[in-house]
Amino acid sequence: MIPIISIVGKSDSGKTTLIEKLVPELTRRGYRIATVKHDVHGFEVDREGKDSWRHKKAGAHSVVISSPHKVALIRDVEKDLTLDEIRDKLIQDVDLILSEGYKKDVQPKIEIFRKEKHKELLCTKEDRLVAIASNKKFHTGVPCFGLEDAKGLASFIEKEFLKSKRGGEVSLHLDGSPIPLSPFVKDFLTKTIRGMLSALKGCEKSKRIKIYIED
Amino acid sequence: MIPIISIVGKSDSGKTTLIEKLVPELTRRGYRIATVKHDVHGFEVDREGKDSWRHKKAGAHSVVISSPHKVALIRDVEKDLTLDEIRDKLIQDVDLILSEGYKKDVQPKIEIFRKEKHKELLCTKEDRLVAIASNKKFHTGVPCFGLEDAKGLASFIEKEFLKSKRGGEVSLHLDGSPIPLSPFVKDFLTKTIRGMLSALKGCEKSKRIKIYIED
Repeated sequence: MIPIISIVGKSDSGKTTLIEKLVPELTRRGYRIATVKHDVHGFEVDREGKDSWRHKKAGAHSVVISSPHKVALIRDVEKDLTLDEIRDKLIQDVDLILSEGYKKDVQPKIEIFRKEKHKELLCTKEDRLVAIASNKKFHTGVPCFGLEDAKGLASFIEKEFLKSKRGGEVSLHLDGSPIPLSPFVKDFLTKTIRGMLSALKGCEKSKRIKIYIED
Repeated sequence: MIPIISIVGKSDSGKTTLIEKLVPELTRRGYRIATVKHDVHGFEVDREGKDSWRHKKAGAHSVVISSPHKVALIRDVEKDLTLDEIRDKLIQDVDLILSEGYKKDVQPKIEIFRKEKHKELLCTKEDRLVAIASNKKFHTGVPCFGLEDAKGLASFIEKEFLKSKRGGEVSLHLDGSPIPLSPFVKDFLTKTIRGMLSALKGCEKSKRIKIYIED
């Protein structure tokens, strides 16, 4: 599963700026990064009058704009998606997701704190605060980095969320919802399906298996 | 699998306008529609200086902008995606995909033809031309509709691609590539996996099963 870390902090604490430093630092280390930004006010996609804009205006649930170097998808949702839902429905082919904000979501958080602007931290360990970027020292048991220390934070993220966590993954979704699997069931599913597929020509040695069944 | 139909025609033949009529007509009949537009020149997503724009500029592979009513994903690709790849990687929760253009793709096509502007059809039955919208009558063995007849075309699409084609689906992807499955293997996979899952609590009666395994 792609790990998610939220960069949280009060408004104007420098969340976007920190993300702008972390993304190239992690990219340089060979990781592909996705970012997520919440926008309560809605957003403009493409310009008024363009074909894709006209498709959406006509009532299309989803609109894709495809070009040789990037693609965009704009789709309707019925409610604000959680970060888990965003990962499941939208994001593929990356190593890490950094969200800006989402302090109420259940994902691990890095908080930015500026002593000249803030009185106290937004998050505690119970909110899954895993690190602080600040110009003040804290003794909360959570690692603390300087406000400009993107390299230190990137190393922390790499160690805690990327290298050490790279292992196998097994997931099962039924009617769109993830089903919790015990290690035993994961092992059982993996071995049975791998065994079954090993009998099919050309399917002997693949790393990733995706199966979809619909009645 | 979500059916795909391409609306093709020479430039200025009215492809966007036809899509603008088909989308609400099909939506009114209870279908959710996705549209796809190719943009060789690239496109602008969000405005310069906005946070999501800064994330992408910093090198994020994917950027998601989430709001209570719609979400947008902008991601890098290494080459132009085919319609099949767009469906697999980006589109969920819809009943039909209408693309504007993509006349060289392998999907079924509806061609718009205006006698005052065009000399001959772009597509033949070999290109999977399934219908024509035109102010000229053709005798090609392919159904022909008036240029303004969105209702007629919607009924044709409904009959040929929506109602009658609703059946089961089984797919297997290994390392990201789809593996062709014979009816026998589909049946074998479905029954074995359904049998296996029926032993797990809470997994007895689901319509859709998705399994992901990674080493």
